[in-house]
Amino acid sequence: MSGDVFQFRLTHTDGGARCGVMTTAHGRVATPAFMPVGTQGAVKGVAHKDLESIGAEILLSNTYHLYLRPGDDLIARRGGLHRFIGWNKPILTDSGGYQVFSLSERRTITEEGARFRSHLDGSSHLLTPEKAADIQAQLGSDVAMVLDECLAYPATPEAAAASSSRTTRWAQRARTRMSQLRDGPVDDVIVTNAGQAQFGIVQGSVFPALREQSAHDTVAIGFEGYAIGGLSVGEPIDVMYELVAHTTPHLPIDRPRYLMGTGTPEDLVEAVARGIDLFDCVLPTRNARNGQLFTSEGRINIKNVRYAEDDRPVDPSCNCYTCRTHSRAYLRHLYATGEINAATLNTLHNLSFYLDTLSRIRDAIAFGRFESFRLAFHQRLSRQSGGFEPPE
Amino acid sequence: MSGDVFQFRLTHTDGGARCGVMTTAHGRVATPAFMPVGTQGAVKGVAHKDLESIGAEILLSNTYHLYLRPGDDLIARRGGLHRFIGWNKPILTDSGGYQVFSLSERRTITEEGARFRSHLDGSSHLLTPEKAADIQAQLGSDVAMVLDECLAYPATPEAAAASSSRTTRWAQRARTRMSQLRDGPVDDVIVTNAGQAQFGIVQGSVFPALREQSAHDTVAIGFEGYAIGGLSVGEPIDVMYELVAHTTPHLPIDRPRYLMGTGTPEDLVEAVARGIDLFDCVLPTRNARNGQLFTSEGRINIKNVRYAEDDRPVDPSCNCYTCRTHSRAYLRHLYATGEINAATLNTLHNLSFYLDTLSRIRDAIAFGRFESFRLAFHQRLSRQSGGFEPPE
Repeated sequence: MSGDVFQFRLTHTDGGARCGVMTTAHGRVATPAFMPVGTQGAVKGVAHKDLESIGAEILLSNTYHLYLRPGDDLIARRGGLHRFIGWNKPILTDSGGYQVFSLSERRTITEEGARFRSHLDGSSHLLTPEKAADIQAQLGSDVAMVLDECLAYPATPEAAAASSSRTTRWAQRARTRMSQLRDGPVDDVIVTNAGQAQFGIVQGSVFPALREQSAHDTVAIGFEGYAIGGLSVGEPIDVMYELVAHTTPHLPIDRPRYLMGTGTPEDLVEAVARGIDLFDCVLPTRNARNGQLFTSEGRINIKNVRYAEDDRPVDPSCNCYTCRTHSRAYLRHLYATGEINAATLNTLHNLSFYLDTLSRIRDAIAFGRFESFRLAFHQRLSRQSGGFEPPE
Repeated sequence: MSGDVFQFRLTHTDGGARCGVMTTAHGRVATPAFMPVGTQGAVKGVAHKDLESIGAEILLSNTYHLYLRPGDDLIARRGGLHRFIGWNKPILTDSGGYQVFSLSERRTITEEGARFRSHLDGSSHLLTPEKAADIQAQLGSDVAMVLDECLAYPATPEAAAASSSRTTRWAQRARTRMSQLRDGPVDDVIVTNAGQAQFGIVQGSVFPALREQSAHDTVAIGFEGYAIGGLSVGEPIDVMYELVAHTTPHLPIDRPRYLMGTGTPEDLVEAVARGIDLFDCVLPTRNARNGQLFTSEGRINIKNVRYAEDDRPVDPSCNCYTCRTHSRAYLRHLYATGEINAATLNTLHNLSFYLDTLSRIRDAIAFGRFESFRLAFHQRLSRQSGGFEPPE
């Protein structure tokens, strides 16, 4: 077994922005790419076929949730996550660390790992770098993430330095475990995807020097790709952009770069400008369920009474099923009456908007017009006071 | 304006069973047909495109709900229900009466109509036969139903007789109103579908003589089609079958016959055998949301732990998207974790099963093999103890 299945090839660059093709055990992904979040092995409210129809090439799924329910053992017995959920394209799994830090109860971090109690039933669990690798080996995702320590914002430089260096030590342990898993049987772990890649994660809070050190140390270990973690956690938006710009030059040109948990459509454009290739975020899906819809001219809140008799589509320049078929008036009615279809149709639109934005980004880069695209993108948004509709 | 757009043509008969084509202002419906219920103008959890893909040719929508939210005036200003909800095929609307009887608070029935308070905000409303016709004219459904009195079961013969004759008087008023609406402007009612048909409803509780009288009186008024109401309200199943068999011979051969609010797949087969052409029921959609799935060998409850590691599709002989793509194990996981997708995928399957059953019924009738189909259908179901899985 080896990680050779996984490949990344740059096809175009335009300033700091890059286009590429990421090849995985379950097919290719054109980058820059957005990964819809399928927490429990399903993108809430959207069938796989609809995800494919709007151009989703890779899903993100959450190790923490799947480990607790239905359990990675059960999924491994089914042949892995792809077969269990019926999705044959690439999947990236996180390490579970983020949810341990944000969802679980009474967590304690030691050098060994993170001990926590399940938010579901209070049961006690220990997540170590090795365990996170084992679970993901059983899930058989195409890209596994190393366990990292997710530091809250703000943090002191001392706390950030300690946390960041622990993340580096954990990354080394995760990589060692990955090698063992690739080389042969490890305990009773069922490796369901021999072509699984593993990405390291750069931490360091908002301190450029720590970010640089973390990038250097993580690259020294050597992974198939690199993520920037610990951003979009409350720091000012400009700080995030600065840190991304400061970090990407310290990552290998020929490996994919993944900005975790970000962000708004504007964030995606700005991060691409700074050399990012992969994104995931719950914003399009979660906001859809709350009635907030992304459009090329800003966000609209479909529950707003102003849309009660608005026969226009959500976004006249969008070609998704929701926009082709339904009016704002109907979507508002569905939301107001609490229909499931409000969630499904809104989510389909928001994900379409995100995926379409990435598609247009890729085209712009390929044609060497990314800067003009970026300018036009922001100008169009700013027509509607900062991209947000005025309050009622 | 006229009702001439609406046509019904029988194409095959086989014993008491009939195949036909119902032509409406929004296209044709092959009968016998099942109408998925889209209470608020949406079939809960299923996009219109998916309804079309599984063969739905006509939807039922609820006047009571649409009248209260978003209001028939708003829908009329949008050009009617088809345009408002983005569904271009036939729609049948009920009169609102059933919900007034089952959902609303403090309802009082007089000869004039039904006064009730909204279950949403307690506001007071009066639904008369004329008002029910006006609302449906504004909705612009292809088939409108007359307002009838929905009697609870059991009822005394005297109460049933009084109620049934009131329904007849209401039917006459509804028909008179329909003529006025067809002839020209009525008050400020916006007629959004000039080709709307109107069906009368036979009542009479469980008393054959009353059913016969009601059928006679309703047919004497003259409608484009006839429904049998007030069944599937708690009476024994054999009594329902008997009453259907007793009533259909008193309805015109050349008009569609609609058995309201029924039923199980077995009920559909048995009612078709007794000459019914149209059905609606919340069973496939509501039960799907509760995890109960219909299969050719009986019902299964997907939350059952026995399905946790069951890699088979819900129904191996079903060709729906859910069965082609997902295992029972995955569907159980989605249900157990409370994912929206449990509702959407389960509903898609149950409706597919219903629509496919109707399709096979039509084929059997067309080939003169309905009796052998009926026998095989029941035999297959009875393989699994009465069509239900044994309890845990």
